[in-house]
Amino acid sequence: MIGIFDSGIGGLTVMRALMEQIPGYDIIYFGDTARTPYGTKSPETVIRYALENTDFLLKKGAKIIVMACNTASSIATERVVEKYKFPIFEVITPAVELSLKSSKKLSIGVIGTRATIQSGIYEKKLLEINPDARVYSTACPLLVPLVEEGWLKKPVTSMVVKKYLHPLKTRQIDTLILGCTHYPLLKKIIQNKIGKRVNIIDSSAGVAEKVKDFLKTNKDIENKLSKNGKFSLFVSDITPQFEKTAKAVLKRNVKLEKV
Amino acid sequence: MIGIFDSGIGGLTVMRALMEQIPGYDIIYFGDTARTPYGTKSPETVIRYALENTDFLLKKGAKIIVMACNTASSIATERVVEKYKFPIFEVITPAVELSLKSSKKLSIGVIGTRATIQSGIYEKKLLEINPDARVYSTACPLLVPLVEEGWLKKPVTSMVVKKYLHPLKTRQIDTLILGCTHYPLLKKIIQNKIGKRVNIIDSSAGVAEKVKDFLKTNKDIENKLSKNGKFSLFVSDITPQFEKTAKAVLKRNVKLEKV
Repeated sequence: MIGIFDSGIGGLTVMRALMEQIPGYDIIYFGDTARTPYGTKSPETVIRYALENTDFLLKKGAKIIVMACNTASSIATERVVEKYKFPIFEVITPAVELSLKSSKKLSIGVIGTRATIQSGIYEKKLLEINPDARVYSTACPLLVPLVEEGWLKKPVTSMVVKKYLHPLKTRQIDTLILGCTHYPLLKKIIQNKIGKRVNIIDSSAGVAEKVKDFLKTNKDIENKLSKNGKFSLFVSDITPQFEKTAKAVLKRNVKLEKV
Repeated sequence: MIGIFDSGIGGLTVMRALMEQIPGYDIIYFGDTARTPYGTKSPETVIRYALENTDFLLKKGAKIIVMACNTASSIATERVVEKYKFPIFEVITPAVELSLKSSKKLSIGVIGTRATIQSGIYEKKLLEINPDARVYSTACPLLVPLVEEGWLKKPVTSMVVKKYLHPLKTRQIDTLILGCTHYPLLKKIIQNKIGKRVNIIDSSAGVAEKVKDFLKTNKDIENKLSKNGKFSLFVSDITPQFEKTAKAVLKRNVKLEKV
């Protein structure tokens, strides 16, 4: 089983990418809806939540873990990898690699939650690979609540996106990393406000590719994964919005279990 | 000691009202910032959090408890009162009573989080006291994140408020209950959008008055309260925004302790 967790519903975009790119594998998803959002919380608290979530998925039988949450990936990866001897995938590195491939001017924007941006993880990783890159980051704390409210096409959402992207637009970036798994649901508005020439990098496809490559070369682990095309969704709190969005993102009926 | 809790920073408006109306009493505040917000979570989860928070405050020496959170007040009051034999104050009843006194046309609007509005508590209590009242409610889930982001005067906030209040405006209400302790921080915008003739009811003053009256007539409990004018702030997660807002709301320096 492939285990995925997120603070809430955003990680479903990663789950969808996995279902598309490597269909057939059983997937278990945990959305920490009772404690969402992570992006406004302190590093210490985010680390504790990430360890607890990983523990839950391993006990349920997951053989690899995808942290489909940028905030947890930014802050807790080291601690989770240190504690567990399982293959752990985070969503930062795939986006960093894709963006460096895409950017001609090496002028890259990053948007994310306050916790992700304050961690400086994208800048650090981008500059590690290419010290010539110029990285401009902006925290966009209201985008997650707007997505959770379902205001995906409202004028207000356009205004908020425009306001947040303004400093990046003046920097004339040619590539923009969506540093939060909620943001792909606002991709059209973001593309519209940042301009057509800017290439938008969404880490969900990138992380699914990483998992695919890993399974090709690690047959011992691949053999342990069950392949009945089943998926199960666990949440720490059942809310009507989660069910609605899960159906829309995964394009099928879902059954939630509360833990 | 008077104990107060909220899901986050909103309850500080209630704390401020208590400090103004009955100065001198020691106050202990708990903001559940690690699990905020409550308004999007299920009733079961909100009840569990309210019981845990009450427990914490009682262990710290609180002799009366103010649930300065509309979501918890809406959903968890009965269960908290049932479990603890302490005087418990909630923020719904004072606003209900004030609004019925204020409304001439008995046409009353209520705004709150999704959980508060879905609970139907305001409508129920208003109609219990006056069955002739007409009550119009609207959930405004984005207002809490906007306040937490500090966008108190931004055009986007005006737009969101206008959008949420539109259905209430068409109903020609003459009184509007702010059914969330965050909303007093947006009072000017709300007044502006709903119109000058609408009387806005903010429960923080009302609940402070309830506590004041209670202490006058219950001297046995009043005698147990320490009166050194001290206050302490506990949070489940320390974030820079909390400290900033706490200073602004309480108009003094604050020191946070994490639990």
